[in-house]
Amino acid sequence: MAIEMFDLAGGDEALRFSPYCWRTRMALAHKGLDVATVPVRFGEKHKIEFSGQKLVPVIRDGDKTVSDSWAIAEYLDSAYADRPALFPAGSKALTSFVRHWTQTRLSLPLMRVMLMDIYETIDPADRDYFRTSREQRFGKKLEEMMAPEEGRTAFNAELAPAREVLKEAPFLNGDAPAFADYCLFGIFMFARGVSPRARTLLDATDTVYAWRERMLDLHNGLARNAPGKGA
Amino acid sequence: MAIEMFDLAGGDEALRFSPYCWRTRMALAHKGLDVATVPVRFGEKHKIEFSGQKLVPVIRDGDKTVSDSWAIAEYLDSAYADRPALFPAGSKALTSFVRHWTQTRLSLPLMRVMLMDIYETIDPADRDYFRTSREQRFGKKLEEMMAPEEGRTAFNAELAPAREVLKEAPFLNGDAPAFADYCLFGIFMFARGVSPRARTLLDATDTVYAWRERMLDLHNGLARNAPGKGA
Repeated sequence: MAIEMFDLAGGDEALRFSPYCWRTRMALAHKGLDVATVPVRFGEKHKIEFSGQKLVPVIRDGDKTVSDSWAIAEYLDSAYADRPALFPAGSKALTSFVRHWTQTRLSLPLMRVMLMDIYETIDPADRDYFRTSREQRFGKKLEEMMAPEEGRTAFNAELAPAREVLKEAPFLNGDAPAFADYCLFGIFMFARGVSPRARTLLDATDTVYAWRERMLDLHNGLARNAPGKGA
Repeated sequence: MAIEMFDLAGGDEALRFSPYCWRTRMALAHKGLDVATVPVRFGEKHKIEFSGQKLVPVIRDGDKTVSDSWAIAEYLDSAYADRPALFPAGSKALTSFVRHWTQTRLSLPLMRVMLMDIYETIDPADRDYFRTSREQRFGKKLEEMMAPEEGRTAFNAELAPAREVLKEAPFLNGDAPAFADYCLFGIFMFARGVSPRARTLLDATDTVYAWRERMLDLHNGLARNAPGKGA
């Protein structure tokens, strides 16, 4: 039976743009596991009430429920140990470094590029919740957070370590992708999901650009074939 | 016979403050190898002419010469494969990520805190060379690069991914230190070598602070016992 995955959805239910859900989607494909996704809009948290918390992604594998993209990856490596590893032996702490780097250094500059694009992507019924929660978090109006040029410049500056590694190896993990790659890739799938600006986020000569192309092609083009405003 | 290591020295020959040399010094200790360091001031490049290039660190192990801290670590793992690994299996690309992160994101904010401290640490005879080469690189007078408070704030912001990983594990590499840890630690040993400001670079409640203490204690306190202006 396919694993159920509860996945953040936009006003157009086909648009899936959560960076954390994309980590999980790619992780399931990496493991070669069948998946049936269940769209969850911001206003549909009741769909994941059974998980005992309020955030996607959540997976249900038979009678096992796991939430949080990192915990899901750990579960998959443990439950499906005979399939390609998401955390190759001895690499978990360094993978976590890349995870935290994406969350602490890349998210904010990207918000400055495309916060209003998210607002327009989500279901109209979700917009008040989104505006109130984000304006509280940032201490500013959504519109005041926007500074696309500065955001793009800062985002590209922060990508420097990935840019250098990708001059040495095809993937952040080395010769083959692993969860570290999916952590960064989630950021780009978020951008691709919500914004036409995703197309111009990177220079075409950037090693990160070439890597993103390789990531889009993985697992039979799973990510490339996903609907997105920046596709 | 001990491995010879050519190590950047200050006006006071006991001050060793190159972040790259500290990576190598710690790597040799990690491997449990005997080392005899040879001090090299900026103006003493003739001492490493035999290596065919102009940068320290350089090691000479019998009739083998290796330069560049990364290449030296690779050499040590290959030549002394039975000793604790600097790159645990499968972790080399992710270790390189941490390496490039320290070089692309941490060096510049730190320069803003202590560039003049370097100037005062190096041999008076080296100061003209240092000033000319750095002012050319930065396109500014040394004095204009200095902005200690802004530099400290930016440096601490960039440390965020390390801070998060060190909430989960004692070392960047996980349960035990490896070359990724030495890459970051080199930055702190540089600070400690040249500047009294090194003591206040981190808040004492920071997980990175506690990690630095652990690193100082490694290998019988090798780093803690080294002379430094911020010791």
